[in-house]
Amino acid sequence: MYDGQNCSAARALEVVGERWSLLIIRDALFRGMSRFADFQRSLGIATNVLAKRLDGFVSAGLMERVASGEDAYAEYRLTEKGRDLLPVIVALTKWGDRWAAPDGAPILYVHECGGTIKQTLSCTRCGPVTKDSISVKRGPGARASGRAARR
Amino acid sequence: MYDGQNCSAARALEVVGERWSLLIIRDALFRGMSRFADFQRSLGIATNVLAKRLDGFVSAGLMERVASGEDAYAEYRLTEKGRDLLPVIVALTKWGDRWAAPDGAPILYVHECGGTIKQTLSCTRCGPVTKDSISVKRGPGARASGRAARR
Repeated sequence: MYDGQNCSAARALEVVGERWSLLIIRDALFRGMSRFADFQRSLGIATNVLAKRLDGFVSAGLMERVASGEDAYAEYRLTEKGRDLLPVIVALTKWGDRWAAPDGAPILYVHECGGTIKQTLSCTRCGPVTKDSISVKRGPGARASGRAARR
Repeated sequence: MYDGQNCSAARALEVVGERWSLLIIRDALFRGMSRFADFQRSLGIATNVLAKRLDGFVSAGLMERVASGEDAYAEYRLTEKGRDLLPVIVALTKWGDRWAAPDGAPILYVHECGGTIKQTLSCTRCGPVTKDSISVKRGPGARASGRAARR
């Protein structure tokens, strides 16, 4: 999808950048959904698209497909790799809350203690930082561009 | 795109969920790019797709199109609404670094003091939290579903 981009954000988007992908993950993470019919009802998408996304998630290791319950229906359960997308969904939500929610946040993220969840960027040396004080530099994987892009 | 989803993550994805969108924002945020030709060179995408994305960003208020320099070339500059996508890109990068960067992180986010940037989820009451202690509840915008979905 994003060949030649030696970038972790691009690689993440290769796995979850297609239409509906992150909303399926959202439903699995926060609405406890695991069955095809539940995702379909929640999202109202074409069954072939949903099937393709779920199969893709299984292939990519974001979900495991297991037979469950008396009827042995297929369930799609998030793996740790899939659950680890939570901060991405929180970040998208925070942006939408700020810029595209004129009636207020439709949902709130809450901690089990009852407090609300905030997502912050901080510096390992000096604590919380503002966005405009952040820049990028080459990391250890910077040289492997050509090789990594072909994976 | 995601009609009927009263969800801030879905609304964010309506604006930046199309192919290449977040990588264009990434280049503007972290590589200082503002010109069509620079984005095109960085991403190697079809010019009609790039033009459509940039025009969409201007319409959505993520970028401003300004004539700049001696040659009065068009520049696409991020607005505050566009720059505010930084945490989304950081979250995608962190996921990619963990799950899709076998050679190590291609880039590192650094603070102006020289420290590295981390993104954390914390509770307003009790501090840093783990992902599995987070759930959702209805927020103030929860009732506006039908109305919001038609916007």
